[in-house]
Amino acid sequence: MTIDKKSRIPAYVQLMEYIISQIKSESLHEGDKLPSERELCDIFDISRATVRQAIHELEKEGYVYIKKGIGSFVEDRRLNQEMSGLYSYTQSMKNLGKTISTQLVDFARIPCSPRLALKMDCPEGTEIYRFTRVRYADNEPMLIVTTHLPCSRFPELNSESLISGSLYTLMEECYHVEFTNASETLQSVSAKKEEAKLLDIEEHAPCMMINRRTFENEKMIEYAVGIARGDKFKYNVELR
Amino acid sequence: MTIDKKSRIPAYVQLMEYIISQIKSESLHEGDKLPSERELCDIFDISRATVRQAIHELEKEGYVYIKKGIGSFVEDRRLNQEMSGLYSYTQSMKNLGKTISTQLVDFARIPCSPRLALKMDCPEGTEIYRFTRVRYADNEPMLIVTTHLPCSRFPELNSESLISGSLYTLMEECYHVEFTNASETLQSVSAKKEEAKLLDIEEHAPCMMINRRTFENEKMIEYAVGIARGDKFKYNVELR
Repeated sequence: MTIDKKSRIPAYVQLMEYIISQIKSESLHEGDKLPSERELCDIFDISRATVRQAIHELEKEGYVYIKKGIGSFVEDRRLNQEMSGLYSYTQSMKNLGKTISTQLVDFARIPCSPRLALKMDCPEGTEIYRFTRVRYADNEPMLIVTTHLPCSRFPELNSESLISGSLYTLMEECYHVEFTNASETLQSVSAKKEEAKLLDIEEHAPCMMINRRTFENEKMIEYAVGIARGDKFKYNVELR
Repeated sequence: MTIDKKSRIPAYVQLMEYIISQIKSESLHEGDKLPSERELCDIFDISRATVRQAIHELEKEGYVYIKKGIGSFVEDRRLNQEMSGLYSYTQSMKNLGKTISTQLVDFARIPCSPRLALKMDCPEGTEIYRFTRVRYADNEPMLIVTTHLPCSRFPELNSESLISGSLYTLMEECYHVEFTNASETLQSVSAKKEEAKLLDIEEHAPCMMINRRTFENEKMIEYAVGIARGDKFKYNVELR
């Protein structure tokens, strides 16, 4: 790669774009040290001031962090989701100061299939809501969640109410749910075609599949399957 | 795909191999229903007895489970790792009746780099052991773990002792470690070339990257990075 000094795109922006592409293609990983300022000057035949401006902007945009006297390192861009209590996507994103939005891609009222009945721990044919939402943070798609709820526990659930915020808040405020516990299973999977399209990532890109079963006094009230972008999330658990 | 009735490979084995290839290529997923016996007879122009034998063998080998009167479903082949307490790979595999073995691919005594010093919460230059092991179950590679230990806490650590079983048992029995807690981070990643080779999977196949920091009375005594096969493990956590 060379820097085109005749381009209308400033040299520091060209260098930034090159480094960002290296990070996005995983040629540079979290914690990797960038070449030194001196080396970048030599490699691209550009001035120290240009290199400094690029690094400074990359730091501002959260791609790198600078350790004085040591160098610049690739920042971990994944959001750290603490797996404690009944964590909620909406709340986690709000804590990070992100603007969240939701797209409802599917909403249906269906009888429970044999397979789903096993997962939901209810008789076959039980009426459930099944709906799929894409969750965004600052207008970027982050996560697809397909939720299954028993209709009997959530009568007259309104599809419009599902795009305006946290499902758990809705469940608590409108249906007086008292959450007791949940069980979650994490699997590393690759994005299927349809998922990749909704998440604006490459097909087969790494994703975290999260199966959650939520309980209210030992009665299962939610079964949800999430597909979260692998480049956006990491999950932390404390072991004691 | 057609069944070659003139082949020396029995028809039921050909059908098994076809279904297994569908599962391995993820054309069939966990929980998917196989076509009915009747349908399989028609599709492949084979007898009901042949289909039954194939399904029966697939069940024995753990690829499918049969629900009487409903049909055959693709079994979840992932091992469920409960993320509670300081779970150990060795112990989990033993509980499942697997024969475990370990290959040591690297063992070094090195001074802590600036980056590692941050992770290990120790001064730069501190002497540490860094070693990488491939863990097998029933002769199949499952997991690569790169472990970092402070030399001062584990004097005269012997590389031979690392292949004979659980590192945690060694730490407890030979170094009288009293584990207090650990913090673990899970990320969905794709296998790099070298990792894929060690794990006998395709490059870019989904893997779980597990970063573990283990503590003894608030002092960090282990930093480990695991790369676990995505097709072999799922991780369960209970949320309260």
